[in-house]
Amino acid sequence: MAKENFVEQIADIEADFPRWYTDVVVKTGLVDYGPVKGTMVIRPYGYAIWENIQSQLDKRFKATGHRNAYFPLLIPMSFFTKEAEHVEGFAPEVAVVTHAGGEELAEPLAIRPTSETIFGSMYSKWIQSYRDLPVLINQWANVMRWEKTTRPFLRTSEFLWQEGHTAHSSEEEALDETMKMLGVYKEFAENCLAIPVICGRKTEKEKFAGAVATFGMEAMMKDGKSLQAGTTHYLGQNFAKAFDIKYLDKDGVQKYVYTSSWGVSTRLIGALIMAHGDSRGLVLPPVVAPVQVVIIPIAAKKGGVLEACADLKQKLESAGVRVTLDDGDNSPGWKFNEWEMKGVPLRIELGPRDIENGKAMIFRRDSLEKSEYALDGIADTVTNLLSAVQKDMLESARKRRDGRIVYADDLNGILQGVEGGNFVKAGWCGLRGCEDKIKTETAATARVFAEGETSCKCAVCGKKAEHTVIFARAY
Amino acid sequence: MAKENFVEQIADIEADFPRWYTDVVVKTGLVDYGPVKGTMVIRPYGYAIWENIQSQLDKRFKATGHRNAYFPLLIPMSFFTKEAEHVEGFAPEVAVVTHAGGEELAEPLAIRPTSETIFGSMYSKWIQSYRDLPVLINQWANVMRWEKTTRPFLRTSEFLWQEGHTAHSSEEEALDETMKMLGVYKEFAENCLAIPVICGRKTEKEKFAGAVATFGMEAMMKDGKSLQAGTTHYLGQNFAKAFDIKYLDKDGVQKYVYTSSWGVSTRLIGALIMAHGDSRGLVLPPVVAPVQVVIIPIAAKKGGVLEACADLKQKLESAGVRVTLDDGDNSPGWKFNEWEMKGVPLRIELGPRDIENGKAMIFRRDSLEKSEYALDGIADTVTNLLSAVQKDMLESARKRRDGRIVYADDLNGILQGVEGGNFVKAGWCGLRGCEDKIKTETAATARVFAEGETSCKCAVCGKKAEHTVIFARAY
Repeated sequence: MAKENFVEQIADIEADFPRWYTDVVVKTGLVDYGPVKGTMVIRPYGYAIWENIQSQLDKRFKATGHRNAYFPLLIPMSFFTKEAEHVEGFAPEVAVVTHAGGEELAEPLAIRPTSETIFGSMYSKWIQSYRDLPVLINQWANVMRWEKTTRPFLRTSEFLWQEGHTAHSSEEEALDETMKMLGVYKEFAENCLAIPVICGRKTEKEKFAGAVATFGMEAMMKDGKSLQAGTTHYLGQNFAKAFDIKYLDKDGVQKYVYTSSWGVSTRLIGALIMAHGDSRGLVLPPVVAPVQVVIIPIAAKKGGVLEACADLKQKLESAGVRVTLDDGDNSPGWKFNEWEMKGVPLRIELGPRDIENGKAMIFRRDSLEKSEYALDGIADTVTNLLSAVQKDMLESARKRRDGRIVYADDLNGILQGVEGGNFVKAGWCGLRGCEDKIKTETAATARVFAEGETSCKCAVCGKKAEHTVIFARAY
Repeated sequence: MAKENFVEQIADIEADFPRWYTDVVVKTGLVDYGPVKGTMVIRPYGYAIWENIQSQLDKRFKATGHRNAYFPLLIPMSFFTKEAEHVEGFAPEVAVVTHAGGEELAEPLAIRPTSETIFGSMYSKWIQSYRDLPVLINQWANVMRWEKTTRPFLRTSEFLWQEGHTAHSSEEEALDETMKMLGVYKEFAENCLAIPVICGRKTEKEKFAGAVATFGMEAMMKDGKSLQAGTTHYLGQNFAKAFDIKYLDKDGVQKYVYTSSWGVSTRLIGALIMAHGDSRGLVLPPVVAPVQVVIIPIAAKKGGVLEACADLKQKLESAGVRVTLDDGDNSPGWKFNEWEMKGVPLRIELGPRDIENGKAMIFRRDSLEKSEYALDGIADTVTNLLSAVQKDMLESARKRRDGRIVYADDLNGILQGVEGGNFVKAGWCGLRGCEDKIKTETAATARVFAEGETSCKCAVCGKKAEHTVIFARAY
């Protein structure tokens, strides 16, 4: 790799946000384009973020009583036709296996775009009695949705995700699960990704194909657009009826179960990049950063410097910090740029004078502040700084977002709001025609209902508003 | 689930080992058959074993300098034709996507049966200079090989695995990697799965399609057959040349890299079952057992029993033990049978009299021994017992296997050896004809070369032996 100033290779974040994004994801080694159009290779630096996301979510799923399993990739095409809305929503995006083992298959097989149907077919076999309920299963898997326009992490034909699928004996319990997992996602997004999210119900138009109700969490990116960061679905008895998932209740009556499903994906990595990144590149929150601290030796050839750096690294590792010592040949300035671009939360600079004084310089990637700290007790100092970075990143993202939520009374207000890079709250009568008109005129879509808020009139038709809705342009 | 005696539902292990196997995998809730022929659903109890296997292997891969990544599922069919042996080996088993997004694809895409080709295509882009080497990447993924005859875990059209793919500047380094990872697998198999393995090189006939040399580890199952539990491949420059993976060396010359690949899969769960299981069902080694200890209350309705059990559970959890308290309605005897079938290493029985005496009965699944232990210091007792079970299971499997390795001088000796449920060591001249003849006449295949041993003559043709080979019937 040539010794250039990386920073200059990234497009200006203010002038060209989309270009800045693709520059950052590729040049920091998060991802590369796969040989098949619309596919991505998640490189080690990007995959390490995903591993941290997985481990944080997985322990939350287990703490709420879920267990992991693995269901087949290939689903008979006929399964999709069993739920009318579901097939309409997913059939156009499906990748189809028609040949295998040198022969044409009797029935074409879909590569799962989502797994409600195959979970449904197995649940109908496993669930017989009220004693078998609830069933609370999650799977970590790859899924495939053939998309025309793709962008790494945000929209690719194949992506990685988790999908929870649960079955319950009552509507209330299934709805509780749907809301509980939305809460788990929100707490995770805020405390691990440092991304504040707005959660709420989606409109009929925006809901999952086959759901009774979909709830989403929406995150504001630095360009003011919204990214749907996760969804939970209350499926009612739609899939239970399509797949005949029945149980014998205590009262001796056969009843259909109520189901839910919920998922987040590698899209979250895109959210991290666009919620926190700046002109120098990535800014990663410590909880999910693959490298939390990079140590850069100054005047590395002077006696004792590398030894002191190695000693420091050892101390931080013992304290459970993910730390890298960059003892490569490049200049300190070059290393500063590279690790800043890679978004490492803290940089520690250690040179002969620092060692003599028993001090080290620590640079915070989020605030760009640099201060001197005593080497004595440095592990505690670093641990505390990492917590502070995590907390401050959430607060600063929240402040940024809250300053960009505006209200509008009419179509023109919505247009001006979203053109100014805002989320816009406006009244909506509940009719599809008005929702469609907002999209046509402003390129904004209904993200979620603003829970607990009421508007008096619909911004389009002026009739009585049924909901206050958050409108935004979205990824 | 009906209150029957589970044990009677399992076929007799002595009389019908294959039937015993399929009974055990299904009835213990490890796995179920998927709707598409040859596919399996890995249920939570089975998947929890896989998660334990993953976490043990993953830390070993990382400790040896490897990083995880994720490469696309779909590979252009043309990639396979670039390496002549590789396409011959894998093309017949490939599942092919011909349509996606409602259109026929310009080029059909293979669902990866293994990923040397797609790693190769990316490595040729990423590797430019000697400074970029070595590249040490692993991925956890699903793969697909269309098989005619399938059996859960052992051979299914889709399975889960990890595949390491590495690139090096010298033959020596790539070969070192190939042997190092074989060593990692062996240490893992013995210390985590409690399965003794024999490692060695494979014959040309049995090697991976596209490799220069394949090394395998072979484990003996309870019926005396061998199961290939993992392989590592030295690929030489075969894939480097097929995918043009070149680097500029220090001397200014463009050179091809040397590559290796290595993998283990959900097959290991099949190995666990058949290496340790007995007439009562599964016997799981503590390191990978989803539940290490089950607590069964005796006379649960008596005052204080459930409280004491819950207290015990809490103590064991604090000591890092994976423990379940079965406070369900079934009788203790029924619970004993169920948890024995599920292979839980230790069962603790706790009733009013035990509590009064400050003692508990502990039953060891591996040795079927039951002894009384003081409740005082029980967490240490349990931790020590779990270590003892782990160690004893390996020793007992080793003793069993070592007693079933025999030598043969001729074809008839091989036949008698494998019919008696043994591994047979015999001389082989190195010619394919003799290897084929052994397979035809005895249904045994060459598993691995018995490293360091020499035989004087080939068991088939009587000419000078090149290798001593371990022959066995195999899964």
